[in-house]
Amino acid sequence: MSATDELLANNERFARAFPGPVSGRPSLGVAVVACMDARMDVYALLGLTPGQAHVLRNAGGEVTEDMIRSLTISQHELGTTEIILIHHTQCGMQTFTNSEFKAKLEAETGRKPRWSSLAFTDLDADVRKAIARVKASPFLTCTRTVRGFVFEVETGSLHEVR
Amino acid sequence: MSATDELLANNERFARAFPGPVSGRPSLGVAVVACMDARMDVYALLGLTPGQAHVLRNAGGEVTEDMIRSLTISQHELGTTEIILIHHTQCGMQTFTNSEFKAKLEAETGRKPRWSSLAFTDLDADVRKAIARVKASPFLTCTRTVRGFVFEVETGSLHEVR
Repeated sequence: MSATDELLANNERFARAFPGPVSGRPSLGVAVVACMDARMDVYALLGLTPGQAHVLRNAGGEVTEDMIRSLTISQHELGTTEIILIHHTQCGMQTFTNSEFKAKLEAETGRKPRWSSLAFTDLDADVRKAIARVKASPFLTCTRTVRGFVFEVETGSLHEVR
Repeated sequence: MSATDELLANNERFARAFPGPVSGRPSLGVAVVACMDARMDVYALLGLTPGQAHVLRNAGGEVTEDMIRSLTISQHELGTTEIILIHHTQCGMQTFTNSEFKAKLEAETGRKPRWSSLAFTDLDADVRKAIARVKASPFLTCTRTVRGFVFEVETGSLHEVR
């Protein structure tokens, strides 16, 4: 049995206890942008329940063009007005450089990506860059409440980056 | 108090009961790509616990270049070998066309995006397209287990798209 099959069996149990549908319009008006890291259950660590917020995740929790696309849809089509950005300690994105990653990928696949891995070194600086990218987008018109945090994988706490 | 402040108060409670750190290397070797939709608590609906899987999310659960970047890091740096793609019923991405969205955005912000919204009409076809994009990437070398699903927001069930 693959891990995917195990998770599908979990979903069968979940569906049997499903409490019923909720609205697709985020009731808290919040969009969360977080790293894909396996240690972060974003619903649990923010105490979210279904229907309250959009959750967007990629490697690093970076504000890429695809994140801008998603956040623009979140604000203009589904009415969110607050953005929470979450990076975390011990991030895999700090364990290699972009050029190291490209060289490794070329050795393993014979191809070099045209995109950057977006590896970074300074965690707080990367959160500030993410905040700045949201604020600089002409399409994200609700930027009054854009706040960035570091999740401590050691303690479960969020610390704000100012 | 903003919604963000409410969620931070939730996090304080979460951290007080934090059971302790887990490894950042996904123990199930799974990466999940899902829509950002507020109705999907991906951990809950798959029965995931922290440390088991990467979770990646954007508007639509689309396999964009940024998703390929994230999945490549997931496979080559953190050892995942299975991919689960999750779209869902009643998706906001089916409620407008790309040209309608661009026109609306231009009216609201005075600017037209260079990117597509990636709106779609046929749900199953869009899941198949996502599977095909993963399989076509030269950087995603573990494509033996790439499966796509529709989450029914009405019932909580996952249905496989073949």
